[in-house]
Amino acid sequence: LSKYMNQTPHRPESNERFAVNLRVTVAHGHSIKELAMDIAIEQSIEIPEDCIPDETHERGIVGRIETIEPIPDSKNQFDVTISYRTDNTGFSMPQFLNIVFGNISMKNGIKVTSLDIPDSLLDTFAGPQFGIEGIRAMLGVYNRPLACTAIKPIGLATDKLASMVADYSRGGLDIIKEDHNMADLAYHPFMERVARLQEAVVETNASTGGSTMYFPMVNGGFEEIEKQFARVHSLGIRGVLTAPLLIGTDTVRVLSRRYNLAVLAHPAFTGTHFHDPNHGMTPAVLFGTIFRLMGADVSIFPNAGGRFGFTHQECLDVADALKKPLGKLKPAFPCAAGGMKLNLIGAMAETFGADSVLLIGGALMQNSKDLAKNAAEFMDGIRQHFKEERRLPR
Amino acid sequence: LSKYMNQTPHRPESNERFAVNLRVTVAHGHSIKELAMDIAIEQSIEIPEDCIPDETHERGIVGRIETIEPIPDSKNQFDVTISYRTDNTGFSMPQFLNIVFGNISMKNGIKVTSLDIPDSLLDTFAGPQFGIEGIRAMLGVYNRPLACTAIKPIGLATDKLASMVADYSRGGLDIIKEDHNMADLAYHPFMERVARLQEAVVETNASTGGSTMYFPMVNGGFEEIEKQFARVHSLGIRGVLTAPLLIGTDTVRVLSRRYNLAVLAHPAFTGTHFHDPNHGMTPAVLFGTIFRLMGADVSIFPNAGGRFGFTHQECLDVADALKKPLGKLKPAFPCAAGGMKLNLIGAMAETFGADSVLLIGGALMQNSKDLAKNAAEFMDGIRQHFKEERRLPR
Repeated sequence: LSKYMNQTPHRPESNERFAVNLRVTVAHGHSIKELAMDIAIEQSIEIPEDCIPDETHERGIVGRIETIEPIPDSKNQFDVTISYRTDNTGFSMPQFLNIVFGNISMKNGIKVTSLDIPDSLLDTFAGPQFGIEGIRAMLGVYNRPLACTAIKPIGLATDKLASMVADYSRGGLDIIKEDHNMADLAYHPFMERVARLQEAVVETNASTGGSTMYFPMVNGGFEEIEKQFARVHSLGIRGVLTAPLLIGTDTVRVLSRRYNLAVLAHPAFTGTHFHDPNHGMTPAVLFGTIFRLMGADVSIFPNAGGRFGFTHQECLDVADALKKPLGKLKPAFPCAAGGMKLNLIGAMAETFGADSVLLIGGALMQNSKDLAKNAAEFMDGIRQHFKEERRLPR
Repeated sequence: LSKYMNQTPHRPESNERFAVNLRVTVAHGHSIKELAMDIAIEQSIEIPEDCIPDETHERGIVGRIETIEPIPDSKNQFDVTISYRTDNTGFSMPQFLNIVFGNISMKNGIKVTSLDIPDSLLDTFAGPQFGIEGIRAMLGVYNRPLACTAIKPIGLATDKLASMVADYSRGGLDIIKEDHNMADLAYHPFMERVARLQEAVVETNASTGGSTMYFPMVNGGFEEIEKQFARVHSLGIRGVLTAPLLIGTDTVRVLSRRYNLAVLAHPAFTGTHFHDPNHGMTPAVLFGTIFRLMGADVSIFPNAGGRFGFTHQECLDVADALKKPLGKLKPAFPCAAGGMKLNLIGAMAETFGADSVLLIGGALMQNSKDLAKNAAEFMDGIRQHFKEERRLPR
């Protein structure tokens, strides 16, 4: 026992707090005060009120209702702020998410609309390693949105995938990511595939003078995931695509830092937070604040007008959460995607501005059989709207 | 490169398939055939139909619509079965979940109602290590539901938590789990706490002849989680409580096997799948099939009549998915919880039968100040309904 008494470097107890802002819809016959207190207890001590020891209250360990504000023109909706002791999180990402929305996810009519996070927690999670400026420096590309596509479909031989990568690089795209279903598959095993595809992009860059980057999908099981990050790093690849809700947000946070890799966060498995406007987390909270905290340098989310049902305002809110001041955390790129087409570049550029990543996947393949030409059209489309600056990539 | 060519032990390609059964709600003006095809493409190759190479179709890599059946008495709902090549999963848990519900989670009106999984995948994931019979053997308790409680609240000194554990053990409970918010906190650091609480249960068992087990909450970040499993194992503890959607389903699967620990799966962060009957996964799919695949020996879910809104039928369906034949996988205990009280034991026993775990948390503290007596009442309540058998625990 004594062996462990001093081993875990624990911070001293502190009564600093963080806050979760919720929009709560009250069902008929319930009171907002009771509901807010239920939430505060559920997400902290989870015992009946009459069992709460006095000292637990006094030390602030119980969730605390800070404000309850009725929504104008609504009879049953309220904005509620509940605070918790920051050290209830153990300064760990899984427990932070547990407090934000663990058990109350199983209730109804509770939407997490924003988070107020103190520097202690921001500094612990630390956010993007590279952020907007870091990714731009890798590419040497300034003053315009970045152009990204996905190589697909799964099942193609590695040779064919490599020639797609070469074609898209020749067309001058900034980032070529893999399709998010491109796991470690018998068709094109991960360890071999990433080497071949990186080789294709390096060779093409050498001949064109370009700085295109290839980001493989890293989505392995617990026994494979670190080997995959290590492999990517060892090949000189600068970043990965990964789905935080499939492999774990803290897995992404730790391994991306350990292997010095940029993170394109993919939204797979997140969607049940969004289809009901009154329950879940808003896109801005999950794709903006939480994925940025975790270390996303680029956060991919479904654009309005694409094949998923996000609103224009929700997309703007995600972008804002990724870029606005947040302690010492670097700003991250929003990447609105999903059914995007070349003829939407103007609208996308107007909506998201220069500091964004435009991802056109299937529609870029569809444009013509000449993928290099399609990529060049994509780049031309962007340059019509922005005066690109180039510097030497780092 | 050559170093890796033969390193990853890949199965040969195979056209074996698994199937996802969905209930699809069709919005006005859409056709079920188009929607089903959208889903099949989205979850496999994610490119426009006219870009699909012939050989990708021929090899069965594209999701395939197997059946579309209208729901009687419904104008816009259909049961749809879509199959995918099993090896599209790479035989990994994250990619399996990605195919089942990754991108379509961001759509609307799609409910995963069941999964048809071939033995190749079942044998890979392997399911519960112990299952109902294994947990019973640890306790030497047969022919009645198991009794479980949670020690809480967070913030109590480790000494007080240990004396709660001792009291509950003295009362004869089967499993004492930690509260799911009891992370590695400054109040009671994990490494020390688990040793003290295990000591309390071992000493009490020695004096009473009982076989109570203590299961700590294991929910650390990526850098801590394996150390936590290892610590638990090294102390002779037989199992853990953990929240798969917070630390990752495959993290739970791999580490529980590596450290030979039973798994109580906690439903934190799962709830957005359930509040809308027309979108998400059913409780039976997530708490039943998927958590069982992952290796849950006990799956905790909100009971009907508790403080979450599950229906009686949903709870029965979870229990059925945990216990019914599923390849070589062992059956697992259902554990209906959340606002359960002593006076509901009869109803719970009738609903779930002998092969279930009854979890009473806050209400057991509330019953009286004498926790050992409360625990004994809980046990008496169970024994009123079942003729307990005891054997030597293993």
